[in-house]
Amino acid sequence: MKNAFYAQSGGVTAVINASACGVIETARKHKDKIGKVYAGRNGIIGALTEDLIDTSKESAKSIAALRHTPAGAFGSCRYKLKGLEENKLQYERLIEVFRAHNIGYFFYNGGGDSADTCLKVSQISEKLGYPIIAVHVPKTVDNDLPITDNCPGFGSVAKYVAVSTREATLDVESMAKTSTKVFVLEVMGRHAGWIAAAGALASSKELELPIIILFPEVAFDQVKFIAKVSVAVKKFGYCTVVVSEGVKGPDGKFLSDQGLRDAFGHAQLGGVAPVIAGMIKNELNLKYHWAVADYMQRSARHIASKTDVAQAYATGKAAVEVALQGRNSVMPAIKRISNKPYKWKIEIAELKQVANKEKFMPRNFITADGFGVTEKCRQYLLPLIQGEDYPPYRNGLPQYVRLKNVAAKKKLGEFKL
Amino acid sequence: MKNAFYAQSGGVTAVINASACGVIETARKHKDKIGKVYAGRNGIIGALTEDLIDTSKESAKSIAALRHTPAGAFGSCRYKLKGLEENKLQYERLIEVFRAHNIGYFFYNGGGDSADTCLKVSQISEKLGYPIIAVHVPKTVDNDLPITDNCPGFGSVAKYVAVSTREATLDVESMAKTSTKVFVLEVMGRHAGWIAAAGALASSKELELPIIILFPEVAFDQVKFIAKVSVAVKKFGYCTVVVSEGVKGPDGKFLSDQGLRDAFGHAQLGGVAPVIAGMIKNELNLKYHWAVADYMQRSARHIASKTDVAQAYATGKAAVEVALQGRNSVMPAIKRISNKPYKWKIEIAELKQVANKEKFMPRNFITADGFGVTEKCRQYLLPLIQGEDYPPYRNGLPQYVRLKNVAAKKKLGEFKL
Repeated sequence: MKNAFYAQSGGVTAVINASACGVIETARKHKDKIGKVYAGRNGIIGALTEDLIDTSKESAKSIAALRHTPAGAFGSCRYKLKGLEENKLQYERLIEVFRAHNIGYFFYNGGGDSADTCLKVSQISEKLGYPIIAVHVPKTVDNDLPITDNCPGFGSVAKYVAVSTREATLDVESMAKTSTKVFVLEVMGRHAGWIAAAGALASSKELELPIIILFPEVAFDQVKFIAKVSVAVKKFGYCTVVVSEGVKGPDGKFLSDQGLRDAFGHAQLGGVAPVIAGMIKNELNLKYHWAVADYMQRSARHIASKTDVAQAYATGKAAVEVALQGRNSVMPAIKRISNKPYKWKIEIAELKQVANKEKFMPRNFITADGFGVTEKCRQYLLPLIQGEDYPPYRNGLPQYVRLKNVAAKKKLGEFKL
Repeated sequence: MKNAFYAQSGGVTAVINASACGVIETARKHKDKIGKVYAGRNGIIGALTEDLIDTSKESAKSIAALRHTPAGAFGSCRYKLKGLEENKLQYERLIEVFRAHNIGYFFYNGGGDSADTCLKVSQISEKLGYPIIAVHVPKTVDNDLPITDNCPGFGSVAKYVAVSTREATLDVESMAKTSTKVFVLEVMGRHAGWIAAAGALASSKELELPIIILFPEVAFDQVKFIAKVSVAVKKFGYCTVVVSEGVKGPDGKFLSDQGLRDAFGHAQLGGVAPVIAGMIKNELNLKYHWAVADYMQRSARHIASKTDVAQAYATGKAAVEVALQGRNSVMPAIKRISNKPYKWKIEIAELKQVANKEKFMPRNFITADGFGVTEKCRQYLLPLIQGEDYPPYRNGLPQYVRLKNVAAKKKLGEFKL
């Protein structure tokens, strides 16, 4: 009987631990087929350095609490393994660690880069003749993985952005007569505008709000943008701009890269929100406020989407189930069956189809003027933010679990990263 | 039988509409003593321009929904009436409008400045021989009104900051091995550090997290601050800094005022978060991320404190009840009876004691090093964030009400502001 290895990779989300919960609870249900689940401390680094967390030391209650706990309970990392030929040593080390701990299942929970690593692990295992079943568990707030209809992690950040945009816009509406006319909210999305698009959901037929979206997929045109803001403020008295951190000018440079200097000449890495706000001040002389959601948006488990939590858990669960069926080099993907009512199921995608591909907003999801989302996009997004899944509270605060994270005994010598 | 006038003043909150709900529902229960409740469109400006909203046109259901709707449903404004002698005309106009619409009750929902206006209205009413009962309903996220133990609006922003700080800090903790070591969150508080103090609640005995707080009450000392961050990162591997927008250097200047210039030499009004983050980069060369909560924090009705909602409603209700008892020039204040269990009641404060005074964090609420809160402060803050009071959701989003806001017929000529 083989043990399993699970690791979290890249930027964490409000629901990546729900996937971990799905993996571990499902493995525990198959004690006849899977031994221990080891988790990598700080992601794949834990595998390379043989720093394995023995999850069997955690109570059923603690593992269940992962479902409502944000961020990465075992630690995650930004550490991309190089190509097989460039750094064969690292892959060999992984196999060595797996062999030492009798690990036959590799569950890797991450985005596009991690899918690629997962694929490589299954390839090297074949080459070195040590059998490993490698299954990728999808996770990314960026929603940019191909094949899967959406990515666990995205629904919750989308809900956070839609809710926060609605609330802050009502605030601006209240005060616009004598105070702020334009509110700018910066959200994540270096390459794809999915998160910014969610800001548009703040406005609905029952509660119309003027929301302007700036996507990384649309080259920023200052003249058109300023005109758009001006028209909205004339019509409504105010407006909100939701801007992707990755918006670029016609020169292809990030708009946030404005060469800001402080009084001592030090470069300041600003966000894009103050840049947009500054333009509004300079061109229209309107009072503005700006916010940068940063990590708050991707860790906001308190306002997670119930749909997202369910899908994060389901992909973790399915990963173990397909592994037990002997499927290798695959990823559980979310398949949309219908919009109204929203129905979905898990399908199995080949990792070769997933790795190293980014899914951008399709052009027909963005309005002709480039500043909003189409009805088609709205129908895509709305199911993903459905339902609330509140964590339990104690003493006024969400009761998030911190695991014991007991290290398994090392069996090998040190390895230099 | 007299009508009543109600207006919202200054920055709105997640629960100011709960106070409006308390005022209007209570007035409706006393139809034998109070006629209509008129609301000022955009606050006191609505009174001056005779732009009165007839709240009797709103259904009981809509008024009830105010309890769970953030921001100012009738519009608020930043408009401070000058002294009685400087601008007697404005006060005379108010009385003229009240007389024209048979208004005998003046309910003003705001902070310190508004308490002063409310006091002046009661004084001019006496001088001009037109009887008005003026009652102030406390509201401010800044929590800086005297007499009252705390201010409606504060508990909810405190809960938002505590929850968001906990979530984002868990995010940083997960990734610190290879990524961000220091997360900086900028929160409101130009003069008083109450909101920043709430960030410290993110850490508890069960879930210890390294949180450093920067208060406006403590002159910023860069050397001590950098040392504090360095020690925390050495011990925990990461830390979070919650910084009040109003933090000042030893020279008394706002730290956010760094004379930032873009590539074209335009001044950029940055927040204080990027300034703090830049210091951490320059002095310690640690990877950082920063967020600015701005309007999101004070409009976050989705994570409002149940205690705060109850107190906001109770002060609105009490305002009408004391007015009916003939008490003039007063404010319902919150009196803390006990901490454990938390018990409170409404007492009546004289407006003279409240107007134009700011309540700062007492020195014994701040730790000796100036970077944290004491147990005394924690015991003060914790009761205020107790309980969740979730709004209803429709289609994945909180179902906030937008009122019809029908204008009452004008009876007077125009008035130039």
